[in-house]
Amino acid sequence: MNNHAQYPEKTQATYLGRHILAEFFDCDSNVLNNLELIEKKMSEAATACGAHIVQTCFHMFNPHGVSGVVIISESHLAIHTWPELGYAAVDLFTCGENCDPKIAYDFLKQAFSSKSGSYSELRRGMLVSPDLVQKAPFCIKDQIEV
Amino acid sequence: MNNHAQYPEKTQATYLGRHILAEFFDCDSNVLNNLELIEKKMSEAATACGAHIVQTCFHMFNPHGVSGVVIISESHLAIHTWPELGYAAVDLFTCGENCDPKIAYDFLKQAFSSKSGSYSELRRGMLVSPDLVQKAPFCIKDQIEV
Repeated sequence: MNNHAQYPEKTQATYLGRHILAEFFDCDSNVLNNLELIEKKMSEAATACGAHIVQTCFHMFNPHGVSGVVIISESHLAIHTWPELGYAAVDLFTCGENCDPKIAYDFLKQAFSSKSGSYSELRRGMLVSPDLVQKAPFCIKDQIEV
Repeated sequence: MNNHAQYPEKTQATYLGRHILAEFFDCDSNVLNNLELIEKKMSEAATACGAHIVQTCFHMFNPHGVSGVVIISESHLAIHTWPELGYAAVDLFTCGENCDPKIAYDFLKQAFSSKSGSYSELRRGMLVSPDLVQKAPFCIKDQIEV
Protein backbone atom coordinates (compact mmCIF):
# COMPACT_ATOMS: atom_id res chain seq x y z
CA MET A 1 0.00 0.00 0.00
CA ASN A 2 1.64 3.24 -1.04
CA ASN A 3 1.49 6.52 0.83
CA HIS A 4 -1.52 7.81 -1.05
CA ALA A 5 -3.39 4.55 -0.62
CA GLN A 6 -4.39 4.89 3.01
CA TYR A 7 -7.71 3.40 2.14
CA PRO A 8 -10.28 3.22 4.86
CA GLU A 9 -11.01 0.33 7.17
CA LYS A 10 -14.08 -1.73 6.41
CA THR A 11 -15.87 0.03 9.19
CA GLN A 12 -15.05 3.46 7.80
CA ALA A 13 -15.72 5.25 4.54
CA THR A 14 -16.19 3.07 1.50
CA TYR A 15 -14.12 5.12 -0.94
CA LEU A 16 -10.45 5.92 -1.41
CA GLY A 17 -10.69 9.63 -1.90
CA ARG A 18 -12.60 12.88 -2.15
CA HIS A 19 -12.30 15.08 -5.23
CA ILE A 20 -13.44 18.68 -5.09
CA LEU A 21 -13.74 20.42 -8.47
CA ALA A 22 -13.78 24.13 -7.73
CA GLU A 23 -14.72 27.10 -9.88
CA PHE A 24 -13.35 30.42 -8.69
CA PHE A 25 -14.82 33.44 -10.47
CA ASP A 26 -14.33 37.17 -9.91
CA CYS A 27 -10.79 36.59 -8.67
CA ASP A 28 -7.90 39.06 -8.45
CA SER A 29 -6.44 38.79 -11.95
CA ASN A 30 -3.01 39.88 -10.77
CA VAL A 31 -2.91 36.98 -8.35
CA LEU A 32 -4.06 34.56 -11.05
CA ASN A 33 -1.23 35.70 -13.31
CA ASN A 34 1.54 35.41 -10.70
CA LEU A 35 3.25 32.01 -11.03
CA GLU A 36 5.31 32.27 -7.84
CA LEU A 37 2.30 33.36 -5.79
CA ILE A 38 0.02 30.67 -7.26
CA GLU A 39 2.60 27.97 -6.51
CA LYS A 40 3.04 29.31 -2.97
CA LYS A 41 -0.69 29.43 -2.26
CA MET A 42 -1.34 25.99 -3.76
CA SER A 43 1.45 24.53 -1.64
CA GLU A 44 0.12 26.27 1.48
CA ALA A 45 -3.38 24.97 0.67
CA ALA A 46 -2.02 21.42 0.49
CA THR A 47 -0.36 21.72 3.88
CA ALA A 48 -3.38 23.47 5.39
CA CYS A 49 -5.71 20.61 4.47
CA GLY A 50 -3.41 18.03 6.04
CA ALA A 51 -1.60 16.79 2.94
CA HIS A 52 2.09 16.04 2.44
CA ILE A 53 3.77 17.60 -0.62
CA VAL A 54 5.75 15.24 -2.83
CA GLN A 55 6.44 17.39 -5.90
CA THR A 56 5.28 20.64 -7.51
CA CYS A 57 5.07 21.42 -11.21
CA PHE A 58 4.00 24.86 -12.47
CA HIS A 59 4.03 26.63 -15.83
CA MET A 60 3.51 30.25 -16.90
CA PHE A 61 1.77 30.74 -20.22
CA ASN A 62 2.49 33.51 -22.68
CA PRO A 63 1.00 36.11 -22.60
CA HIS A 64 -0.77 35.14 -19.37
CA GLY A 65 -2.23 32.31 -17.35
CA VAL A 66 -0.77 29.74 -14.99
CA SER A 67 -1.16 25.97 -14.85
CA GLY A 68 0.25 23.86 -12.09
CA VAL A 69 0.00 20.80 -9.92
CA VAL A 70 1.03 19.92 -6.39
CA ILE A 71 1.47 16.16 -6.14
CA ILE A 72 0.79 15.08 -2.57
CA SER A 73 1.12 11.72 -0.86
CA GLU A 74 -2.67 11.78 -0.74
CA SER A 75 -3.19 12.51 -4.52
CA HIS A 76 -2.98 16.03 -6.00
CA LEU A 77 -4.04 19.66 -6.18
CA ALA A 78 -4.23 21.24 -9.65
CA ILE A 79 -4.96 24.71 -10.98
CA HIS A 80 -5.48 26.47 -14.31
CA THR A 81 -6.01 30.23 -14.37
CA TRP A 82 -7.55 32.61 -16.90
CA PRO A 83 -6.54 36.02 -15.53
CA GLU A 84 -8.33 37.73 -18.42
CA LEU A 85 -11.58 36.18 -17.14
CA GLY A 86 -10.79 36.39 -13.43
CA TYR A 87 -11.38 32.65 -13.39
CA ALA A 88 -9.50 29.66 -11.98
CA ALA A 89 -10.37 25.96 -12.28
CA VAL A 90 -9.03 24.08 -9.28
CA ASP A 91 -8.98 20.38 -8.42
CA LEU A 92 -8.50 19.18 -4.87
CA PHE A 93 -8.17 15.39 -4.79
CA THR A 94 -7.24 13.87 -1.45
CA CYS A 95 -7.21 10.29 -0.19
CA GLY A 96 -7.33 8.89 3.29
CA GLU A 97 -8.99 10.07 6.45
CA ASN A 98 -6.48 12.74 7.40
CA CYS A 99 -7.11 15.35 4.70
CA ASP A 100 -10.06 17.66 4.14
CA PRO A 101 -10.03 19.22 0.64
CA LYS A 102 -12.74 21.67 1.71
CA ILE A 103 -10.12 23.37 3.89
CA ALA A 104 -7.96 23.87 0.78
CA TYR A 105 -11.02 25.20 -1.08
CA ASP A 106 -11.70 27.82 1.60
CA PHE A 107 -8.00 28.75 1.77
CA LEU A 108 -7.70 29.29 -1.99
CA LYS A 109 -11.00 31.14 -2.35
CA GLN A 110 -9.62 33.70 0.07
CA ALA A 111 -6.11 33.66 -1.45
CA PHE A 112 -7.51 34.48 -4.90
CA SER A 113 -10.00 37.03 -3.50
CA SER A 114 -12.74 35.16 -5.35
CA LYS A 115 -16.09 36.86 -4.99
CA SER A 116 -17.87 33.86 -6.43
CA GLY A 117 -16.67 30.37 -5.68
CA SER A 118 -18.50 27.10 -6.08
CA TYR A 119 -17.60 23.44 -6.25
CA SER A 120 -18.75 19.93 -6.85
CA GLU A 121 -17.45 17.05 -4.78
CA LEU A 122 -17.04 13.55 -6.15
CA ARG A 123 -15.86 10.37 -4.52
CA ARG A 124 -13.10 8.32 -6.11
CA GLY A 125 -12.25 4.64 -5.84
CA MET A 126 -15.39 3.29 -4.30
CA LEU A 127 -14.81 0.17 -2.21
CA VAL A 128 -17.09 -2.41 -0.73
CA SER A 129 -14.69 -4.29 1.46
CA PRO A 130 -13.24 -6.71 0.90
CA ASP A 131 -14.13 -6.42 -2.79
CA LEU A 132 -14.03 -3.45 -5.06
CA VAL A 133 -17.11 -2.12 -6.75
CA GLN A 134 -16.49 -0.50 -10.11
CA LYS A 135 -18.26 2.80 -10.18
CA ALA A 136 -17.73 6.06 -11.93
CA PRO A 137 -17.11 9.00 -9.64
CA PHE A 138 -20.38 10.53 -8.62
CA CYS A 139 -21.44 13.89 -7.30
CA ILE A 140 -22.22 13.91 -3.61
CA LYS A 141 -22.44 17.70 -3.56
CA ASP A 142 -23.36 19.67 -6.63
CA GLN A 143 -23.87 23.35 -7.36
CA ILE A 144 -22.74 24.45 -3.94
CA GLU A 145 -22.26 28.19 -3.75
CA VAL A 146 -19.81 28.98 -0.96
CA MET B 1 -5.69 34.72 -23.68
CA ASN B 2 -3.16 32.05 -22.83
CA ASN B 3 -2.60 28.82 -24.71
CA HIS B 4 -4.99 26.81 -22.60
CA ALA B 5 -7.70 29.45 -22.81
CA GLN B 6 -8.91 28.77 -26.32
CA TYR B 7 -12.37 29.47 -25.10
CA PRO B 8 -15.21 29.07 -27.54
CA GLU B 9 -16.76 31.75 -29.68
CA LYS B 10 -20.16 33.01 -28.59
CA THR B 11 -21.73 30.82 -31.19
CA GLN B 12 -19.99 27.69 -29.97
CA ALA B 13 -19.83 25.75 -26.74
CA THR B 14 -20.59 27.68 -23.58
CA TYR B 15 -17.86 26.21 -21.39
CA LEU B 16 -14.10 26.36 -21.32
CA GLY B 17 -13.33 22.71 -20.85
CA ARG B 18 -14.32 19.09 -20.46
CA HIS B 19 -13.18 17.07 -17.45
CA ILE B 20 -13.39 13.29 -17.52
CA LEU B 21 -12.90 11.57 -14.15
CA ALA B 22 -12.09 7.98 -14.92
CA GLU B 23 -12.02 4.89 -12.74
CA PHE B 24 -9.98 2.01 -14.10
CA PHE B 25 -10.48 -1.25 -12.22
CA ASP B 26 -9.12 -4.75 -12.88
CA CYS B 27 -5.98 -3.32 -14.46
CA ASP B 28 -2.61 -4.98 -15.02
CA SER B 29 -0.91 -4.30 -11.66
CA ASN B 30 2.54 -4.53 -13.20
CA VAL B 31 1.67 -1.72 -15.57
CA LEU B 32 0.22 0.36 -12.73
CA ASN B 33 3.48 -0.01 -10.80
CA ASN B 34 5.80 0.94 -13.68
CA LEU B 35 6.61 4.66 -13.48
CA GLU B 36 8.34 4.90 -16.86
CA LEU B 37 5.51 3.06 -18.61
CA ILE B 38 2.80 5.11 -16.89
CA GLU B 39 4.53 8.36 -17.86
CA LYS B 40 4.93 7.13 -21.44
CA LYS B 41 1.30 6.06 -21.77
CA MET B 42 -0.04 9.25 -20.16
CA SER B 43 2.06 11.34 -22.55
CA GLU B 44 0.90 9.29 -25.52
CA ALA B 45 -2.70 9.67 -24.36
CA ALA B 46 -2.28 13.45 -24.27
CA THR B 47 -0.96 13.54 -27.81
CA ALA B 48 -3.56 11.07 -29.02
CA CYS B 49 -6.43 13.26 -27.85
CA GLY B 50 -5.04 16.32 -29.61
CA ALA B 51 -3.29 18.01 -26.69
CA HIS B 52 0.13 19.65 -26.55
CA ILE B 53 2.44 18.62 -23.70
CA VAL B 54 4.00 21.42 -21.67
CA GLN B 55 5.51 19.54 -18.71
CA THR B 56 5.37 16.13 -17.04
CA CYS B 57 5.74 15.37 -13.34
CA PHE B 58 5.69 11.78 -12.02
CA HIS B 59 6.50 10.13 -8.71
CA MET B 60 7.01 6.51 -7.63
CA PHE B 61 5.80 5.65 -4.16
CA ASN B 62 7.45 3.17 -1.83
CA PRO B 63 6.66 0.30 -1.78
CA HIS B 64 4.39 0.74 -4.80
CA GLY B 65 2.06 3.08 -6.62
CA VAL B 66 2.58 5.91 -9.10
CA SER B 67 1.24 9.45 -9.15
CA GLY B 68 1.80 11.82 -12.02
CA VAL B 69 0.57 14.69 -14.12
CA VAL B 70 0.98 15.75 -17.70
CA ILE B 71 0.44 19.50 -17.96
CA ILE B 72 -0.85 20.33 -21.42
CA SER B 73 -1.55 23.65 -23.11
CA GLU B 74 -5.19 22.64 -22.85
CA SER B 75 -5.12 21.84 -19.04
CA HIS B 76 -3.89 18.49 -17.64
CA LEU B 77 -3.99 14.72 -17.40
CA ALA B 78 -3.42 13.19 -13.95
CA ILE B 79 -3.13 9.66 -12.59
CA HIS B 80 -2.84 7.87 -9.25
CA THR B 81 -2.40 4.12 -9.18
CA TRP B 82 -3.04 1.45 -6.55
CA PRO B 83 -1.32 -1.62 -8.05
CA GLU B 84 -2.34 -3.68 -5.03
CA LEU B 85 -5.97 -3.02 -5.95
CA GLY B 86 -5.54 -3.08 -9.72
CA TYR B 87 -7.06 0.41 -9.65
CA ALA B 88 -6.14 3.75 -11.19
CA ALA B 89 -7.88 7.11 -10.76
CA VAL B 90 -7.36 9.23 -13.87
CA ASP B 91 -8.33 12.81 -14.67
CA LEU B 92 -8.53 14.05 -18.25
CA PHE B 93 -9.18 17.80 -18.31
CA THR B 94 -8.99 19.46 -21.72
CA CYS B 95 -9.99 22.92 -22.91
CA GLY B 96 -10.81 24.21 -26.35
CA GLU B 97 -12.43 22.62 -29.34
CA ASN B 98 -9.45 20.64 -30.58
CA CYS B 99 -9.13 17.99 -27.85
CA ASP B 100 -11.33 15.02 -27.02
CA PRO B 101 -10.55 13.56 -23.58
CA LYS B 102 -12.65 10.49 -24.40
CA ILE B 103 -9.93 9.48 -26.86
CA ALA B 104 -7.42 9.58 -23.99
CA TYR B 105 -9.83 7.54 -21.85
CA ASP B 106 -10.09 4.81 -24.47
CA PHE B 107 -6.33 4.83 -25.03
CA LEU B 108 -5.51 4.44 -21.33
CA LYS B 109 -8.18 1.81 -20.66
CA GLN B 110 -6.45 -0.35 -23.25
CA ALA B 111 -2.94 0.59 -22.07
CA PHE B 112 -3.73 -0.51 -18.52
CA SER B 113 -5.64 -3.62 -19.68
CA SER B 114 -8.54 -2.46 -17.55
CA LYS B 115 -11.38 -4.96 -17.59
CA SER B 116 -13.71 -2.50 -15.93
CA GLY B 117 -13.51 1.17 -16.75
CA SER B 118 -16.03 3.89 -16.14
CA TYR B 119 -16.09 7.66 -16.01
CA SER B 120 -18.01 10.78 -15.26
CA GLU B 121 -17.69 13.86 -17.41
CA LEU B 122 -18.04 17.37 -16.05
CA ARG B 123 -17.86 20.73 -17.73
CA ARG B 124 -15.57 23.43 -16.41
CA GLY B 125 -15.69 27.20 -16.73
CA MET B 126 -19.22 27.73 -17.92
CA LEU B 127 -19.63 30.88 -20.00
CA VAL B 128 -22.62 32.77 -21.23
CA SER B 129 -20.98 35.19 -23.58
CA PRO B 130 -20.18 37.93 -23.14
CA ASP B 131 -20.65 37.47 -19.40
CA LEU B 132 -19.52 34.65 -17.16
CA VAL B 133 -21.98 32.57 -15.23
CA GLN B 134 -20.62 31.19 -12.00
CA LYS B 135 -21.51 27.54 -11.77
CA ALA B 136 -20.02 24.54 -10.12
CA PRO B 137 -18.88 21.84 -12.51
CA PHE B 138 -21.77 19.54 -13.21
CA CYS B 139 -22.09 16.00 -14.46
CA ILE B 140 -23.20 15.73 -18.05
CA LYS B 141 -22.45 12.01 -18.13
CA ASP B 142 -22.54 9.91 -15.01
CA GLN B 143 -22.02 6.23 -14.28
CA ILE B 144 -20.99 5.41 -17.81
CA GLU B 145 -19.63 1.89 -18.12
CA VAL B 146 -17.35 1.71 -21.12
